[in-house]
Amino acid sequence: MGQARCIQIKKEDNVAVATRDIQAGTEVFPGLTTKQDIPQAHKITLRDISRGEAILRYGVVLGYARDFIPEGSLVSEHMLSLPEPPGLDSLTFGAQIAVNLPDPPVMSWEGYEVSGEAYGGTRNILGIHTTVQCVAGVLNAAVDKIRREILPRYPAVDGVVPVNHAYGCGVAIHAPEAIVPIRALQNLVKHPNFGGIIMAVGLGCEKLTADRLLPPDANKPENLILLQEQKGFGQMVAAICAMAERKLALLNQRKRSALPLSKLMIGFQCGGSDAFSGITANPAAGYASDMLVKGGATVLFSEVTEVRDGVHLLAQRCVSEEVGKKLIREMAWYDRYLQEGSVDRSANPTPGNKKGGLANIVEKAMGSIAKSGTAPIIDVLAPAERPRRVGLHFAATPASDFVCGPCQLASGIGIQVFMTGRGTPYGLASIPVVKVCSRNELKEQWPDLIDVNAGPVITGEASIADIGLLLFREIIETASGRKKSFAEAYGLYNDLCIFNPAPIT
Amino acid sequence: MGQARCIQIKKEDNVAVATRDIQAGTEVFPGLTTKQDIPQAHKITLRDISRGEAILRYGVVLGYARDFIPEGSLVSEHMLSLPEPPGLDSLTFGAQIAVNLPDPPVMSWEGYEVSGEAYGGTRNILGIHTTVQCVAGVLNAAVDKIRREILPRYPAVDGVVPVNHAYGCGVAIHAPEAIVPIRALQNLVKHPNFGGIIMAVGLGCEKLTADRLLPPDANKPENLILLQEQKGFGQMVAAICAMAERKLALLNQRKRSALPLSKLMIGFQCGGSDAFSGITANPAAGYASDMLVKGGATVLFSEVTEVRDGVHLLAQRCVSEEVGKKLIREMAWYDRYLQEGSVDRSANPTPGNKKGGLANIVEKAMGSIAKSGTAPIIDVLAPAERPRRVGLHFAATPASDFVCGPCQLASGIGIQVFMTGRGTPYGLASIPVVKVCSRNELKEQWPDLIDVNAGPVITGEASIADIGLLLFREIIETASGRKKSFAEAYGLYNDLCIFNPAPIT
Repeated sequence: MGQARCIQIKKEDNVAVATRDIQAGTEVFPGLTTKQDIPQAHKITLRDISRGEAILRYGVVLGYARDFIPEGSLVSEHMLSLPEPPGLDSLTFGAQIAVNLPDPPVMSWEGYEVSGEAYGGTRNILGIHTTVQCVAGVLNAAVDKIRREILPRYPAVDGVVPVNHAYGCGVAIHAPEAIVPIRALQNLVKHPNFGGIIMAVGLGCEKLTADRLLPPDANKPENLILLQEQKGFGQMVAAICAMAERKLALLNQRKRSALPLSKLMIGFQCGGSDAFSGITANPAAGYASDMLVKGGATVLFSEVTEVRDGVHLLAQRCVSEEVGKKLIREMAWYDRYLQEGSVDRSANPTPGNKKGGLANIVEKAMGSIAKSGTAPIIDVLAPAERPRRVGLHFAATPASDFVCGPCQLASGIGIQVFMTGRGTPYGLASIPVVKVCSRNELKEQWPDLIDVNAGPVITGEASIADIGLLLFREIIETASGRKKSFAEAYGLYNDLCIFNPAPIT
Repeated sequence: MGQARCIQIKKEDNVAVATRDIQAGTEVFPGLTTKQDIPQAHKITLRDISRGEAILRYGVVLGYARDFIPEGSLVSEHMLSLPEPPGLDSLTFGAQIAVNLPDPPVMSWEGYEVSGEAYGGTRNILGIHTTVQCVAGVLNAAVDKIRREILPRYPAVDGVVPVNHAYGCGVAIHAPEAIVPIRALQNLVKHPNFGGIIMAVGLGCEKLTADRLLPPDANKPENLILLQEQKGFGQMVAAICAMAERKLALLNQRKRSALPLSKLMIGFQCGGSDAFSGITANPAAGYASDMLVKGGATVLFSEVTEVRDGVHLLAQRCVSEEVGKKLIREMAWYDRYLQEGSVDRSANPTPGNKKGGLANIVEKAMGSIAKSGTAPIIDVLAPAERPRRVGLHFAATPASDFVCGPCQLASGIGIQVFMTGRGTPYGLASIPVVKVCSRNELKEQWPDLIDVNAGPVITGEASIADIGLLLFREIIETASGRKKSFAEAYGLYNDLCIFNPAPIT
């Protein structure tokens, strides 16, 4: 099967996407010749489009033509007027509940069970939590020492992660939206990769006091060091090292065991998307997601501003009106949040998305939603909330890669799958991140950063199901510790950017 | 001169501050006996106070008594109702322009001149700027290698700092308030400690594109690496190391020379304050600030929410109505920002401030303003703006220590002086931070973190002028590189938390 020059997704579409750079005068479909050069991933009109006519891709209106566009032309951002986002008042819930999901090839993985926790860990890590950014300098100095001098004695432990963040003091801790960062930090303490072993460092005068951060039964001297109670820098480092050693000894006893898929939680995210993301990497991720859900796993997909324009499609997949109402609640919250900051809808996509052929947020949204597959949406989570049941969740978070990641991490994901078209070296410190690219060119450009290539879908060498299955296996291998993702192997990770929609004081 | 048990600041004050823990039944002034235990740094009533009567400290109304308070009692937070902050509509400007500032003992320091820049550098550092958080993982990996393998060959360079931040993508880059983080990052590129040598790492699809970040003449391939243009992780690291080596060779030629004080910019901040901060550390800092200003230096003090209640006092010190109007503009901006986030005025002080005896934001503000000394306010800066003239500036920033610090750094300070009562190990990566404590007990507790102790002012062993002079000398020694502050010597620094009042998308 050869590589088509263009991909038309739905029959009713009046644009197709170029699979590679196409010169003017090329016959791309029988009888259809390009009137100008079309860069790879950009859209080409399949027939004449009148001024004001809808431009359709994925069978969805991306926008309306500002002027007449002749057949065979490039369609770029400024040629479309953006449609209004779907209203939140008249959505239909439960109209499209999929029942035929693909069967997973295996039903178990190997993880670390955590007493009292619904999900298993994918790694064995000493997380050192912090109440406030003030302590970061001292903690980093201590962690350097721990990694060098103590960790090597505990070979069953994968690493030590200082959970530094920008929250904790100089914040409006009673502001209504403070619940978001506080919940995120509280839930990070419970992350299964930290094995229920609690260690925290605070200062002693912060607003996010230890009793706010830690579960009540964990807030005790054996788990907490307050720097203001220590006699100088030397003793601070010594106290942190001594506590870390006690915790490492406990973590060193953890062992992996075979666990059902119902004990695995996976996060899906995309970033640096291009026009192929919605054809290759994201649908393949959606296929893997469907298999995971069929096998009983919990899957999170996110990014409010990137699904906002397809909210009617998500609403139809919500299993109940109760879940649908949560979806509306989260969308409405974000609409208001952006409006208060005077953000217009053109803030997303990014310049890179546009270079990648994405004309506007509607087109990006359709691609973004593809990663959720077809499974029913069993529940909707507020940012950084923990799931209460297995299955597919819409976890409301910002679309910003490095803010979405920590939110999903706080929800408890043991592994994240990250689809990209333009490429980003994004990573998280406490869990593996598996990268999936949308085009062969990116895999060739970044052979040692992209874990799974969905590009063969474009060239016709593989189907979406083929890549979906490949990705499913990669998820299981990586979650089970039999494989490391590239980002993990190199130790590439981003700062833990906690979402704080409340003011700084 | 012995240690008084209590300190009364102004004659009209009806409360004093305990210099140490005082038991009930102790005669603290002739005829005045404590009715209950008074912890160190807390306030004691000097006479009976009726319900509704003003409670005065610093000659200023801290609040109104909610109930009758007998003489000799502890005054705590909940016993005061908070007064309204001064209105912004009827302020008087220029009514109190000090002319007699103390003379500095020296008029020069040793710094690194930077061509075309008004201020000299205090350190010689390779700053590697970033357009976006996405690149942090790769950059950190490269910087580890640079520090290990390349930096030792350039002994005249003090260090390599990756200027990682949470901005750059997934942000509302056209939102009105986006100007704040963008200005901060743009001005950091120009920081004198980086010597005008420009190096930046971007991804290639971010919203904060390199042409937005870098000055127009600096945005060229010899200064910029875009990771999406590199062939994989290995080449990314190699490209960063190679560029760093070229830049280090240039920086290695920098030399210190004697510079006038007019080429030194100093930031003042306080954090983890207690009721002594306003009596010892902050007034001593104010004295040093007055000497610096008299000598022609540029001094920044900040923290909007901590001066808001004393804005009428600052207004009187503004040199012109033009400057006064800028002060009002910044206060009004912050009032609105907090109001939109539904923050009430009790969000500051922190629990630690309260433990330290600070009843409310009025009391904290009076102590905070003391660090600005008495010099006229020559100008007011928006967050992260660069000064245009020498002298004392109010640089509007959040009060959060680790957010104020990066704002002042972006304004261009070469050294920061940090006053604390409770103690914090806060630090910045690119400049030295000198810590001044308000009490002997903190110096005893943290002997290897506190650089200057203002506690002897309480015990009567030193005057404010004595400590002010000591601090002035410490500033000059440290700025000139003849001394390192403790935080600098240990390499303690906080994350670069850039103030972003705009939404995340």
